[in-house]
Amino acid sequence: MRTYNLEERGNTPLYEYLYRCIRGDILSGALQAEEKLPSKRALAEHLHLSVITVENAYAQLTAEGYLTARPKRGYFVSRVERPPTPRKPAAQVLPERPAPVWKLDCKTNRVDSTRFPFAVWSHLTRQVLSQEGTALLAPVPHQGLPALRRAIADDLRDYRGMTVSPEQILVGAGAEYLYLLLAQLLAENAPLAVEDPGYPRITQIYSKSGLACVPVPLDEQGLRLDALQKSGAGAVHISPSHHYPTGIVMPIARRQALLRWAEERNGIIIEDDYDSEFRFAGRPIPTLQSIDTFGRVIYMNTFSQTIAPSMRIGFLVLPPELLARYRRELDFYACPVPATEQAVLTRFLNSGQYEQHLSRMRSEYRLRRFAVLEAFRKSAFADRITITEHGAGLHFLLKIDTETPDDVLRRRAEAMGVRLGFLSEYTKQPDESLAHTLVVNYAGLESAALPEAMELLGKVLYEA
Amino acid sequence: MRTYNLEERGNTPLYEYLYRCIRGDILSGALQAEEKLPSKRALAEHLHLSVITVENAYAQLTAEGYLTARPKRGYFVSRVERPPTPRKPAAQVLPERPAPVWKLDCKTNRVDSTRFPFAVWSHLTRQVLSQEGTALLAPVPHQGLPALRRAIADDLRDYRGMTVSPEQILVGAGAEYLYLLLAQLLAENAPLAVEDPGYPRITQIYSKSGLACVPVPLDEQGLRLDALQKSGAGAVHISPSHHYPTGIVMPIARRQALLRWAEERNGIIIEDDYDSEFRFAGRPIPTLQSIDTFGRVIYMNTFSQTIAPSMRIGFLVLPPELLARYRRELDFYACPVPATEQAVLTRFLNSGQYEQHLSRMRSEYRLRRFAVLEAFRKSAFADRITITEHGAGLHFLLKIDTETPDDVLRRRAEAMGVRLGFLSEYTKQPDESLAHTLVVNYAGLESAALPEAMELLGKVLYEA
Repeated sequence: MRTYNLEERGNTPLYEYLYRCIRGDILSGALQAEEKLPSKRALAEHLHLSVITVENAYAQLTAEGYLTARPKRGYFVSRVERPPTPRKPAAQVLPERPAPVWKLDCKTNRVDSTRFPFAVWSHLTRQVLSQEGTALLAPVPHQGLPALRRAIADDLRDYRGMTVSPEQILVGAGAEYLYLLLAQLLAENAPLAVEDPGYPRITQIYSKSGLACVPVPLDEQGLRLDALQKSGAGAVHISPSHHYPTGIVMPIARRQALLRWAEERNGIIIEDDYDSEFRFAGRPIPTLQSIDTFGRVIYMNTFSQTIAPSMRIGFLVLPPELLARYRRELDFYACPVPATEQAVLTRFLNSGQYEQHLSRMRSEYRLRRFAVLEAFRKSAFADRITITEHGAGLHFLLKIDTETPDDVLRRRAEAMGVRLGFLSEYTKQPDESLAHTLVVNYAGLESAALPEAMELLGKVLYEA
Repeated sequence: MRTYNLEERGNTPLYEYLYRCIRGDILSGALQAEEKLPSKRALAEHLHLSVITVENAYAQLTAEGYLTARPKRGYFVSRVERPPTPRKPAAQVLPERPAPVWKLDCKTNRVDSTRFPFAVWSHLTRQVLSQEGTALLAPVPHQGLPALRRAIADDLRDYRGMTVSPEQILVGAGAEYLYLLLAQLLAENAPLAVEDPGYPRITQIYSKSGLACVPVPLDEQGLRLDALQKSGAGAVHISPSHHYPTGIVMPIARRQALLRWAEERNGIIIEDDYDSEFRFAGRPIPTLQSIDTFGRVIYMNTFSQTIAPSMRIGFLVLPPELLARYRRELDFYACPVPATEQAVLTRFLNSGQYEQHLSRMRSEYRLRRFAVLEAFRKSAFADRITITEHGAGLHFLLKIDTETPDDVLRRRAEAMGVRLGFLSEYTKQPDESLAHTLVVNYAGLESAALPEAMELLGKVLYEA
C-alpha cells in the first residue's frame, strides 16, 4: 500500500492533499490503469486518517475521472491521458535583458502612476465582481462592452466637446493593437502619410502590418499640406492636439485645411489624441473629429497613458463609412480586452473618478513642470540652453548650445547613467535644424531630485 | 447667486455634489473666468448648507485648478480649458446587428462557461488586488509577467510533457492577437501553408496581416507532406492534437515527417494546440514542440477557450532562433494583457484550480457527448446518418444521407431557427467528398434539450 507524507501538506486540507498525491501517482504512472486501490477503510487505517477523509478524496478522484468505482468491487484507476515524459532538456535561450536602471531618465514618456487612485480602482473591481458575477464570462461584443462605449461617448461629449454615438466606438487593447487594426482597415487608402518628426513606433507598426508609410515634414503649424498633397497619400496619421515630440498644437486654420484635403481627395485622417489630456495651457481647439462634416476622420485615444501602462485599453471612433467597412471586413476579430477590465473602466468613467484623477494629475504636473523649468533656468548652464514650450504638455524641447553630435552626447550620457532623447531620433530626414535638441520628458522628475539632476546634466552636456 | 437643486444629488455627499455643480458651470461657461464666487458663508446661507460643506467644495475646486483663492479677496474662477460646443449632431451610423437567437445552435464552437469556478476566480482577483496592490500599475515586461510565464511553463511540463523555459514564452491577448504577431514574425518565411479544410479565420487573419497563405490538403493522418513540399511554403500552421473541423489527431509518424521537412527546408511549424484540453479519448501523443530537437516549432495555445471567451489570454513558446528574431524585430510591442488578469491567471494555474476545472469539464463533456451520440443513434433518422468520431473532442462529424446541397439545407435550417455548420464551409477546394457533412459542436447542448433538438433536426434534414 502506498504511503504519503501527510506532514508536507502545509495548509492544504487533508482530503485534498491525499487527492493530489493519488492523482500525481496516476499521472506519473506509479499507479497503472485498472490497478485496484486499497479500500477506504484499509487506506484510512494505514495513513491514520478518518474514513471520511479517504472517502472524500476517492469521491473527488472519481468525479474527475481518475478513478472508476465498481459496485461491491472497489475503486480502480481509470485509463487517463498521461503527459508524455519530456524527451529533451529545455532549450538554451537568450536570457531576457533586464530593464536598465538610470540615475536620470529624461527620455521615457511615462505618466507617474504612483498617484493613480488604486484604492478606488480596486474597490470598483470588487464591486464589478460581486455585482456582475458570471455575466463577466459571457462573450463581449466585438466592438467592446456597450456600457463602456456609452461611458466613453459621454466623456468625449463632456470633456472634448464631441458628439459620438456608442455604435461608432471600437474598444481595443491599447494604441498598438488599434494601429494593427487600422493598418488592415485602411489597406485600400495606402500609402499612409505620417508626421516627420514623429513617434517612430507608429510608422514601425503600420509598416510591419503591410501598410506603406510616407513621411511628411512639419512646419510651425504642424503637418505641411503641400507636402501631404505631393506625397500621394490616401490617408494620414496625425496628433493635432499635441504633437510628439515637438509639442505643436495644430491651429484651427490648418485643421480646416486638412479636412478640405480629405474631402477633395476622399482621404482619411487618423486623429491620434494620445496625451491630449495632459496639455494644460492654451485655449481649447476643437478636435478634427468634431468639425468633420464629411465623415473623413477616425478619432483615437488610449487609457494606457492616463491610467497606467499596465492597463491596455484604447478606442477608435469610426465615421459611418469606415464603420461599415469595418463591419464588412474586420468584424470577425473578438474584442481583445477582458470583460472585467472593461466593466471596471466603465464605472471609473461614470463615477467621475477618471476626470477627477486627470484633473489632479494636471495640477500636479503643472507644478512639476514649473519646478523643472525653474531648475533649468537657475542651473549652471542656463545661458547655454533654449527651452521651447509648445502646447505645454508632459515634455518640452531643450536646444543645447553645443557642437558635439547628438550620438556622442547620448553615449556619454548613457555611460554616466543618464538617458537622453534627442529630436533627431524622431526624424528620418537628416536636418541640421533638428540637431542638438533634447526632448525632455519630466513626468518622472520629482522636485526633490532636481538639484542632483541638474548637476548631472551639466556634467553630461558641458564637461566633456 | 446661483441656485442648485440639492435634492437631485442621490447618494453623492453634499460637498461633492456642490463641487460638481460648480465645476459644471465653469466648464459650460455659465461661470466665466475671473468671475468672483460668493463667499463661503453667503453661499452656505443661500443653499441652507453648513459653511464647512461649501468650504470643502471650494477647496476641492481650488486643488483641481478650477478656482483660484486670493487671500482676503475670495475665490475666483480660473481660466480653464472648456470643451468646445459640439458643432453637429451625432453621425447617422449603422445600428449594431443584434446577435441572432437560435432555437438550436450546432455550429458555435464554444465552451460552456456556466461551469467555470467564477467564485474562485473572483476570490483570486480580490487576493491579487490586496496583496499586489500598486505593483499592478507598473509596466509589464513585453513578453508578459514573469510569474505567469513560469506558471505556464510548469503547466506545460506537468500536463503536456513539455520542457520549456519561461524566457521562451510570449503572452498575448488571445489567439487572434498572436496570429497578428506571427504574421509579422514570419514575414521572411512566406508563404505560410494552412490546413484545408481548416479554420477560415486563421487564413483570414494571416492574409490581412500581409502574410500570404497556401492551402494544403489533408489525408486521414492530417496535413499531406507531398502537397506541403510542392506548395513552396517556408512555414506551416497546423493543429496536430485535434484538427478543426475534422478532429484528426496527427499520428507520431506524420509528426516526425513534418519535423524532418522543417529541418531540411529550414521551415517553421506553428503548432496550434487550441482545444487540445478537451480531447478525452485516445493515447497521448507528444507535442511536436516536445520532440523538436532543431528548434523549428512554435507552440501556441489560449485560455480564452478553456476559461471563458471574455478572457483573452494566449501564449506562444518560441524556439531560440525565433525568440532572438522576435527580440530583434518585434520586442517594441507592449504586452496587451492587463497586469491584473495576468496575476490572477498565475494564481489560478499555480493553485491547481485550472487543471481541476479542465478535469471537471472533461468529465462533464464526456457525459454530454455520450448523451448526444445516444440521442442521434435513437433518433427517427438514425439510419440516414453516419457519425465519425476522430479524436473525441467537443465536436464530431455527421454525414447526412441526402441529395440536398449544403447551402439549401443551411438556409432551410436558419429559417427554422437552427444553426448548422457544414464541413464544406471549411475548405476552399470544391470537393464532393466533403459535402453533406455536418460539423456538430455539442458543448452547448444540455441533455434536457436533446429530445426537442432531435425532433427539430429531423425536420430540418429530412422533412423538406
